[in-house]
Amino acid sequence: MITTVYSSVRGYRDIMTIQRSLDAFKLLITATSDLLRINQLKAFGSAALNHLLTLMELESSALYIARCQTDYDEKSTNSIIACTGKYVSESDSLESSNISGLIKKMIIQAFDNKRHYFGPDSFVGYYETDSNSASVLYIEFEDDSEHFKSNLAELYATNVVLILETLTKKHEIERTQKELLYVVGEAVEARSKETGAHVKRVALICGLLAQKLGLNERFIDAIRLAAPLHDVGKIAIPEAILHKPGKLNDEEWEIMKTHAEVGAEILSKSQVSLSKLGSKLAHYHHENWDGSGYPEGLKGENIPLEARIMAVADVFDALGSKRCYKKPWSDDEIKAFLISEKQKKFQANLVDIVIKDFDEFSQIRTQFPDDY
Amino acid sequence: MITTVYSSVRGYRDIMTIQRSLDAFKLLITATSDLLRINQLKAFGSAALNHLLTLMELESSALYIARCQTDYDEKSTNSIIACTGKYVSESDSLESSNISGLIKKMIIQAFDNKRHYFGPDSFVGYYETDSNSASVLYIEFEDDSEHFKSNLAELYATNVVLILETLTKKHEIERTQKELLYVVGEAVEARSKETGAHVKRVALICGLLAQKLGLNERFIDAIRLAAPLHDVGKIAIPEAILHKPGKLNDEEWEIMKTHAEVGAEILSKSQVSLSKLGSKLAHYHHENWDGSGYPEGLKGENIPLEARIMAVADVFDALGSKRCYKKPWSDDEIKAFLISEKQKKFQANLVDIVIKDFDEFSQIRTQFPDDY
Repeated sequence: MITTVYSSVRGYRDIMTIQRSLDAFKLLITATSDLLRINQLKAFGSAALNHLLTLMELESSALYIARCQTDYDEKSTNSIIACTGKYVSESDSLESSNISGLIKKMIIQAFDNKRHYFGPDSFVGYYETDSNSASVLYIEFEDDSEHFKSNLAELYATNVVLILETLTKKHEIERTQKELLYVVGEAVEARSKETGAHVKRVALICGLLAQKLGLNERFIDAIRLAAPLHDVGKIAIPEAILHKPGKLNDEEWEIMKTHAEVGAEILSKSQVSLSKLGSKLAHYHHENWDGSGYPEGLKGENIPLEARIMAVADVFDALGSKRCYKKPWSDDEIKAFLISEKQKKFQANLVDIVIKDFDEFSQIRTQFPDDY
Repeated sequence: MITTVYSSVRGYRDIMTIQRSLDAFKLLITATSDLLRINQLKAFGSAALNHLLTLMELESSALYIARCQTDYDEKSTNSIIACTGKYVSESDSLESSNISGLIKKMIIQAFDNKRHYFGPDSFVGYYETDSNSASVLYIEFEDDSEHFKSNLAELYATNVVLILETLTKKHEIERTQKELLYVVGEAVEARSKETGAHVKRVALICGLLAQKLGLNERFIDAIRLAAPLHDVGKIAIPEAILHKPGKLNDEEWEIMKTHAEVGAEILSKSQVSLSKLGSKLAHYHHENWDGSGYPEGLKGENIPLEARIMAVADVFDALGSKRCYKKPWSDDEIKAFLISEKQKKFQANLVDIVIKDFDEFSQIRTQFPDDY
């Protein structure tokens, strides 16, 4: 009888204990889903810390995530990629960050020895994420009686680090893509003796125009990325024509105009979305709203929207810049020209947007000046 | 007394039930970690299905994951990105895949109505992953008495789809990067009248050499990606020199040689890892092992390994190809030349590797022939 009662009571306690674990596991799983939806490193760090605090039933603490990345040439760099709590800046090199020396030492130790450390009021977890990167999670507890003993928090930490790794890689490759596109665009422009900053500015102006048109985020990002490719066809134009200081004669002009189709052809070799957009920009950025442009003489909305945006951005920036055959125009001259070309060269509402927020567009030029 | 016994028994049953749930939750969490480590779509699909089967305590079933992606221009495409079970091919458009018409209809319905469906022996789950994509998970059960009722499997499915989304995006952006690099490399080569296939072949030859040298995966991938950029400096060489059919005179030769430094300079504007590698390749791919090369006249191991690999790959492919000033060389002529240049133009062991597996290297040319 007594045994039965005992066992019953123990049964109840066990149920409570397991039920609590169950709730915690559910929390862990939804926390993982939450993290998977986050695309920003900063937001990621905060969310991960808050989930950990909840899982460990703590009030507050600090979390730093350091990452060791081994490059293709086996050089390693340690950086802080997410943090929350006392230390707030991010994406620093670990060395130059203003994290305290003791903590730096603990993090480096974890990287070197490839294992976890438990301090009196901290936990340092080491996680190998793939063959060329590892992460260290440093957690400091406010209440020094608490330790990082929860198996649950450990499980969660593994997911945190794995998701963060994917996120970091995605950011890295996106940055690589953007920079390579600028570099290529600049190389092409350098050939036609325009400065590289034109490429960057036109990309930003296209993005701003797309944004003010209310187009979706994906379109804005895509046009900003692909814009540097719009003149890639100039690669095939003889320098005698490209660098002629005076006016081109008819024959030279015909050759010059081929850069639109050549660029489109170069980019059409790839079927990825960004190349297809670049191909459209290259092909149609000299078409005019009234049909007087080249190479196809398309009219109005038959010209792809991407190219109509590009046309305005390209001319807006070129007018304000110095070229071998002209001085930069004043703001008033640019405004007057754009207005005079409404419904002729340019779609009217695109001109209206630039005129309305002229200063905002001009600011892009101020931010990225040509250097002579 | 009876009540106590009952409650004790019930307590035990409850503990068993909850304990089973707890085990299932633990399984779910480790399953999520497993998935996060997978980088291949195919492996991902199989792992996800197997985890689901375990979670649902089923023997076998089929799983298809369809994805609807909205492009920058708001065009949507549906594709099958992971599958396992009866239907095995992947990365197809949903329309052209040989999934049965009924199942296609159910998947499209889920995309259109943005909600889950329960069939007699199947579950169709709809998951919005971000503003421009959504996934549908189609699960068919062998045993038609089983349904997809498990809350656990639902929770897991959410993670599956989110992780898959990230993986798909990563693949997409990597493909974009690779194709853009080829396109740019081809554009530069086109200017010097070499065919685009040279760029692709040299990239693959560099990769194969790096692999046979036992270098790490990351190095192999990086050199394969950056190789198309090695001649980017040719963008600045006047076409009179670039296209001269005969031999260049001294002055012309000096100008031609500048392409190495110009290329390095163009690429050094970006600090991302791939550009830095491209910059090294551009700078040093005409350096010779014995110090007789240009632009720096570096010797032996002072030449970065990347550039030593590039030098062999570039010459190997150029010799076997037709150029405006020469016919393609025979295999025996190429072998004899490479051997004669051991320790002169080329690092000896790199030549040895090419000679040893000559057929494997030649095969890259057979696979990507120039078209005239």
